[in-house]
Amino acid sequence: MVAIIGVGHSKFGNRRDVSIPELAWEAIKPALDTANIEQKDIDFFVIGTAGVWSSEAAVAPLIAEYAKLEPAGSMRVEAACATGSAAIRVGYTAIKSGEADVVLILGIEKMQESTNPIVIELIGRFGNFFWEFENFGLTFPAYYALYATAYMAKYNASEEDFARVAVKNHFYGARNPYAQFQKEITIEQALNSPYISWPFKLFDCSPITDGASAVIMVSDDKVKEWKIDERVFILSQGVGTGTANLSKRDNFTSLKSAVYAAEIAYRKAGIDIDNPCKYLDGANVHDCFTSAEIIAYEDLRFAKRGEGVELIREEQTYIGGKIPVNVDGGLKAKGHPIGATGVSQAVEAYKQLLNKAEKGRQIDVVNGKYLTHNIGGTGHYAYVTIYGLER
Amino acid sequence: MVAIIGVGHSKFGNRRDVSIPELAWEAIKPALDTANIEQKDIDFFVIGTAGVWSSEAAVAPLIAEYAKLEPAGSMRVEAACATGSAAIRVGYTAIKSGEADVVLILGIEKMQESTNPIVIELIGRFGNFFWEFENFGLTFPAYYALYATAYMAKYNASEEDFARVAVKNHFYGARNPYAQFQKEITIEQALNSPYISWPFKLFDCSPITDGASAVIMVSDDKVKEWKIDERVFILSQGVGTGTANLSKRDNFTSLKSAVYAAEIAYRKAGIDIDNPCKYLDGANVHDCFTSAEIIAYEDLRFAKRGEGVELIREEQTYIGGKIPVNVDGGLKAKGHPIGATGVSQAVEAYKQLLNKAEKGRQIDVVNGKYLTHNIGGTGHYAYVTIYGLER
Repeated sequence: MVAIIGVGHSKFGNRRDVSIPELAWEAIKPALDTANIEQKDIDFFVIGTAGVWSSEAAVAPLIAEYAKLEPAGSMRVEAACATGSAAIRVGYTAIKSGEADVVLILGIEKMQESTNPIVIELIGRFGNFFWEFENFGLTFPAYYALYATAYMAKYNASEEDFARVAVKNHFYGARNPYAQFQKEITIEQALNSPYISWPFKLFDCSPITDGASAVIMVSDDKVKEWKIDERVFILSQGVGTGTANLSKRDNFTSLKSAVYAAEIAYRKAGIDIDNPCKYLDGANVHDCFTSAEIIAYEDLRFAKRGEGVELIREEQTYIGGKIPVNVDGGLKAKGHPIGATGVSQAVEAYKQLLNKAEKGRQIDVVNGKYLTHNIGGTGHYAYVTIYGLER
Repeated sequence: MVAIIGVGHSKFGNRRDVSIPELAWEAIKPALDTANIEQKDIDFFVIGTAGVWSSEAAVAPLIAEYAKLEPAGSMRVEAACATGSAAIRVGYTAIKSGEADVVLILGIEKMQESTNPIVIELIGRFGNFFWEFENFGLTFPAYYALYATAYMAKYNASEEDFARVAVKNHFYGARNPYAQFQKEITIEQALNSPYISWPFKLFDCSPITDGASAVIMVSDDKVKEWKIDERVFILSQGVGTGTANLSKRDNFTSLKSAVYAAEIAYRKAGIDIDNPCKYLDGANVHDCFTSAEIIAYEDLRFAKRGEGVELIREEQTYIGGKIPVNVDGGLKAKGHPIGATGVSQAVEAYKQLLNKAEKGRQIDVVNGKYLTHNIGGTGHYAYVTIYGLER
């Protein structure tokens, strides 16, 4: 068993006020503090970053030096927008295999090192750059809009339905001091915002964000040796890969890689795939665009096919509903610093399960299980992780 | 226990004749064939690539689609020039932890997507770009030259000593059909080649290379279930990290991260750190520059401090000597496609231990143990891995 015993999170947003190592330290410092350890206790660390925004190609050693992490071994991992979860996986398997005992996982991105429209092009490279971006001009809003329009057509969903996701996630972002947007919005504001790529308007899209998040993971032996009470275990993880070309997808109302990853994660955690909400107290899903959250409800079996949209209409993914989702604001309002997102989801799982979430956004912990769903590209990578209070 | 049961290797060199997925397939296909498995048997794959040479940021999904690897989970890893070994580590821990059974590790780099002098600048970014490259103009030959001159001054080594390493590695490269340079050189040729960064001349430097290499790793259970005879086990791995700034190094005749990584690897494999050559039949070390091979001899304890240069003078690292090193041509003659190098070293360990190396470059397998040493940056990352015939 592998446990998370410490977490840290920088303020997400425009962070031109700090350097990359300084931003990293904003997450590393509180992670060390909550875990009650020092740098020398860490025997392996993993840095998740897409890192194409600056000319500095190798930020991991810079961070290591600034945070005094050497000589412990390290590497960088990348899985597009699922980079943070890939980093979690490397730490998880390092400990579970016995190759490490105390691991720091840092997710970080400083996207605003680039400026518009360059940053949009750089994000676009994490699709199929030379074919779909260069030939057809598909940027990420356009990629996901293909899925949104297919969903609208097949299941009678509307732009208003998508706007409801934005309203929910801004509602909770307003209660998260680390969120990029800490402001509630109305459905009218969302619907009246300018179009980015139909049917997406400004409020359907996650923003360009700088941020860092960190967790300290240890072996079960260390939990016992150090007599740690406040910890969350990783119960299982499922990982899937999708085609590079969207033209090769056979379905635009589901991400096959996410369905595949969820099935593995549920099976390994002993969760009934036909009724996962009975086992889970809450979830973070990859709402890079509002419609993606609704499709995630279905890929994760929170709702049957075509009925995900009902969950948001009936406010079933607010706290008190069938399953609270993204009550930290999600990618939409908390922000989406690519490499940090998956680690930020792990931070949220830890906080929610241990009743440490801020006022107005703490879920009820009944079953002691929490799910995170992190997508890279347009389903090019899918990582589903289940966290739990009990071994 | 984790075993390598299949290997593949593309021709290294200028590979403008193929696309990145095609180059990958040149390594993946023979790896599948020697392992006698199909793509559907793979439940996780890891792609190691630095990948800054082209605008295509996300080559892993492109390769996955071309090689028909989805829906199995995947990620990309990067650790500068130790990227391939970092990928090995992720596969190794995934299997050892029980999270995967059959893993494909691919290392790939297509550096000649860029042209000079851009490629030199891009490589330079894997040091400390904004500080040491931008301020002081340090490219990689210059970084390593700082170590070479310190070694020369402290231990009375000469340019001729460094040239001997080039002569040896070209001697073996000439016997490796996958090597970029399959041509022997004389010590006069090496000494008369033009200076790149004193004391390094052209023949002291590893080249810009395109290439791919792949291994298939499985759990011990699979080795038994599939009744596999031809396999080598990963006995141990040590990993270390060094400072980002060379100005913070306290010693320029050793890489601290490599010493740290070697100690861990030896201890975990039960190898006497004071006499590792007694246990090892051969090794591949990171000879990005000729002097780096000599310093590696000492960091790995093949020789005492200051006596590494004796090993090459006495031809003790040729086949038949104390410990054969880089008898595939090393980075110097085989070539150094950054992400592929660490995986290529694993391919070499497999071939040597199973007596599959080409004529004129097969070592004597006595103890059944082989070491690989892979450095990222200038010791920013160090990976030392021990392979063995017996569990």
